[in-house]
Formats: sequence, C-alpha cells, structure tokens
Amino acid sequence: MLLIAFYIAIAAEAMTAALAAGRRNMDWFGVCLIACVTALGGGTLRDILLDHYPLVWVKNPYVLLLVCGAALATIPLARLVDRLKWPFLLLDALGLVVFTVIGCNIGIEAGVHPIIVIVAGMVTGTAGGILRDVLCNDIPLIFQGELYATVSMITGIVYFAGLGAGVPIDLMVIGSIILGFTLRTLAIAFKWEMPKFVYDRDMRK
Amino acid sequence: MLLIAFYIAIAAEAMTAALAAGRRNMDWFGVCLIACVTALGGGTLRDILLDHYPLVWVKNPYVLLLVCGAALATIPLARLVDRLKWPFLLLDALGLVVFTVIGCNIGIEAGVHPIIVIVAGMVTGTAGGILRDVLCNDIPLIFQGELYATVSMITGIVYFAGLGAGVPIDLMVIGSIILGFTLRTLAIAFKWEMPKFVYDRDMRK
Amino acid sequence: MLLIAFYIAIAAEAMTAALAAGRRNMDWFGVCLIACVTALGGGTLRDILLDHYPLVWVKNPYVLLLVCGAALATIPLARLVDRLKWPFLLLDALGLVVFTVIGCNIGIEAGVHPIIVIVAGMVTGTAGGILRDVLCNDIPLIFQGELYATVSMITGIVYFAGLGAGVPIDLMVIGSIILGFTLRTLAIAFKWEMPKFVYDRDMRK
Repeated sequence: MLLIAFYIAIAAEAMTAALAAGRRNMDWFGVCLIACVTALGGGTLRDILLDHYPLVWVKNPYVLLLVCGAALATIPLARLVDRLKWPFLLLDALGLVVFTVIGCNIGIEAGVHPIIVIVAGMVTGTAGGILRDVLCNDIPLIFQGELYATVSMITGIVYFAGLGAGVPIDLMVIGSIILGFTLRTLAIAFKWEMPKFVYDRDMRK
Repeated sequence: MLLIAFYIAIAAEAMTAALAAGRRNMDWFGVCLIACVTALGGGTLRDILLDHYPLVWVKNPYVLLLVCGAALATIPLARLVDRLKWPFLLLDALGLVVFTVIGCNIGIEAGVHPIIVIVAGMVTGTAGGILRDVLCNDIPLIFQGELYATVSMITGIVYFAGLGAGVPIDLMVIGSIILGFTLRTLAIAFKWEMPKFVYDRDMRK
Repeated sequence: MLLIAFYIAIAAEAMTAALAAGRRNMDWFGVCLIACVTALGGGTLRDILLDHYPLVWVKNPYVLLLVCGAALATIPLARLVDRLKWPFLLLDALGLVVFTVIGCNIGIEAGVHPIIVIVAGMVTGTAGGILRDVLCNDIPLIFQGELYATVSMITGIVYFAGLGAGVPIDLMVIGSIILGFTLRTLAIAFKWEMPKFVYDRDMRK
C-alpha cells in the first residue's frame, strides 16, 4: 500500500513540477529534469547523506520513466491540471507525508539516531521542492511560511514514537499518514503559517 | 585517444566557464571555482549518484591544476577567446559527446541498468553546465531550448546499443563521438530547438 | 581545544546565517535550514566528495540541535547580534580557519594527495557560505573579491607543510589558526581584495 501511495505521489509531484517548469518556458528536457529532481531529489539527497546505495531510481530505473512520462503528459493537459487545483494540493499533501514515512523507514533501517530518523523523513519529504526552486532560480517556497516542513516533522515524530511504543508498523503507517495529511490539509484550508523572522538592517554594510 | 579528448574538453570547458565568471565580475577564486564546477561537476555528480569512488579529480588532482590553469590563462586572453567563438563552440560540442561516452563507460563498468547507463552519460555531459548556471544565479541555459541534452542522450543510446550489438568498442567510441559532434554542430548551425512548454497561469495563487 | 573552537564557530556561523535568512523574511524552518546548511554544509560536502561516512552530524546529531538552537536564539536577539558586528566578524574568521584545519585533518586521515588535503580544507571552510548564498538566491558573496577562500588556502598550505616538516601537530594547529585568523582580520580591516576578472562582451549573443 505504501508502495502504491509512493507511485501516485511521485507522479503527482512530477505533474506539478512540470507546471512550474512550464511557467518558466522551459523546453521538454527541462520539464523532465525538473520533474525528476522534484519527485526523486528528496530521496536521492537522503540516500547520499546516509550513504545508502544504490539509489532508488538507480535500482529501479522505471521510476524515471514514470516521472518523465507524467511530466510530459502534463504538457497537453496543462489547462486541465490547472483546473484540478484542489486534487493536486491533496496529492501533494499525500506525497509529503508518504515520502516522510518512507524516509523514516530508511533511517530506521540504517540504524541511525532517532533525531536523524526524523531528519531523514523531513529531507525525503521536502528537499525535492527546495531543489526545484533552486533550479528555477526562486527563493525556496518552503521558507515563506507555509506549514510544510513542520507537518513533515510532526508526522515523523509521531511515526517514530509510535513504533518505539510498540504499536504495529501497519497501524502506525496508516495512522501517521492520516494525521499528517489532515494537518497539511487544515493548514492549507485555514492558511496556518509559521512565524517569520523579518529582519531589515544589513549587517555587512 | 579518449583521454586526450577528455583533457582538451576539460580545458575548453574551463575557459568558457571563466568567461561566464568574468561576465559576472567574479574574483580569481570565483573564476577557478566556476571552472572546476563546470568542467568536473558532471563527472563528480555522476560518481556520487553511482557511489563510484574515488572521484576522478581526487584520484588525479593534477586535473584541478589543469582546470584552474586554463581558467586563469583565460583572463588576459579574454578578447582573443571571445573572437574564437566558433572554435570554442566546437570544442564545447566535442566536450559534450566525449563526456557522454566516458559517462556511459563508467555506467557500464558499474554494471547498472541500460537506462542508467544513458543517464550516467547525460549527467556527465550536461550537469557541469547546469551547476555553473545555478552558481551564477541563472535559470540553467540548457533548459532554454538548445539541443544539448538531447544530443547527449542520442549519443549515449547509439553508443550503448552499438556495444550491445557487438561492434568493437574503439569503433563505437569514434563513431558515436562523430555522430554526436555532427548533430550538435548542425543544431547550432541551423538553430534546431527543442519544443518548449510555455504555460502562463500560476496554479498557486 | 579544536573541538571547543569548532562548536563556537558552528554556533557563530548559525547566528550570522539566521540574520541572512531574516533579511529574506524566511520562516523559522527556513532560518534553521539555512543555519544548518551554512554551519555544516562545508563539512558535509567534503565528506561526500571524499566518501567519508558517517557524516559529522549523522554520527553526533546534537550538533543539529546546537545549530538550530543558536539560529532560533538569534531571532529575539537580532538587534543585539547586529550591534556586535565586530565580534561576529572575528568569530566568522575563527570559523573559517578552524574549519579549514579540521578539513585538512580529515583529508590527511583519508590518505589523499596533498593537493586534495588543501582542497578538503577549503571546501570545509568555504562551501557552507556558498550553499547559503545559493539557497538565498544570491551570487555567492565569496566570489565578489573578499580575501576569504585565499585565507583558507594559505592556512591549509602552511598547516600541511608544517606537518610535513615534522612540526608537532598541536603547535601547527595553534600556529596556523593564529596565522589564518590574523590574515583574515587584516584583510577585513584594510579591505584587501582579490583581483577581479571583469569581462563585458557576451560570447553567446
């Protein structure tokens, strides 16, 4: 089930990434690359940081075809995808929590410290979007106050704590995905925001 | 012969990268760093993704001296290098296909899936230029429609398919370099372009 | 002693990074991430390039808490931190040379070529700031002429040459930190700058 959710999430990330690339008038290759980086960049960075090889898409390269296919299919469907704004926000929220849980699992498998398990979940959930924004030459959207990384962190903590308390893993996977998904949806609906640190004077001048 | 072409291509990449740094008024250190990232970044990223250590320039650090030397030599010669526009475009095209073939070889050596062999070639050929543009704070040039990554992909596919069909490796190296080089030169001469995905409405607002 | 200097330098880097994030109105998560990347990014990149695992902060995750704590503590103290401009420039200079010496040590431990030992020191000392500027969507400050990477290089060369000449390691650590720190402070005080490569004509057009 986690695997099916993973594929759906990856395809959804690829499609929203393709729209971001389209807004910058990129060519088809750029569209595919931005889609790959967004959908697979988080897991890739996590595996590099944890020295966890081979990478998911090196082991199973058909994931790359799925991502590029979803991205290219978005081009003729752009108007439709755009109209489906809410479904995609929900898929994106699902992706965030599914990626987080998968990242935590990899961290647990690698036997790292609990803090790093949570960090592995957060990197998997959020780094793809950050890399996309760097390649598109934006200040990463995730730093602008949306409750995104925080949802990933809470999901990871609840998931790991639940496992530690002896709750069966299937129950924890489902429970923390529902929790994180609900949190993220509420955050979008009610425009919950992280406090910002606004600071004006420039130290260097 | 591939090795000689590799050194020529690396030096040529370093020199065009130095001009890009000069256009942004970087200091000498910036010039060297941009040159190293452009000339060696593709191979480095490929090796990190494939867990293929030690990196080329860690094993043979004199490559770093070659790159920095070529970059610094470009400073007094800028006007001349600029006038040699065509030779440098050709050297850049040579670099693209040579890097691609080398990247495919590393992938084959590492025993990865054919799709990843092609990806290894493309990463080696194109990632250096993408990293250069990120550090120079541009949207990567490669996403703007030029037939660049596509040439790398076609070169890689032909090279790998030829080897698979039992053609001797020397012949395939020479053949696919000539093919890729010709394709890229024609693409520049006739301004062949990838189709773009132009999309205006912003989904997030 | 090197370890204490390391913690002080990391906390100082985190605090100046937090100010940079605040100037871009990032949220608290962005502040923590920019702080982690700035304070730990150099060492992380060095370890990835040298295949030296586990990463410092994966092995000792309390470093992450220190960095995030220092970054968040900067938010209410921003005005104060700003007024302490000189102490922070000095702490930043200390960080540069301490990171450089630590990076050289890792390189020596890994048994790489002397050139790569110096490069390992420079990456450790300077890459965090470069990554910070990329995430904040600036052309890296370090390329704008400040004598920063050069100080790192000189410190590394003196340190490694001293060890090679048989000087005891404790003496070399202290000596090269004092040397590098003095150099950097003088460079700030007298506005010493690297020569720049200013080049106007655009080759691609």
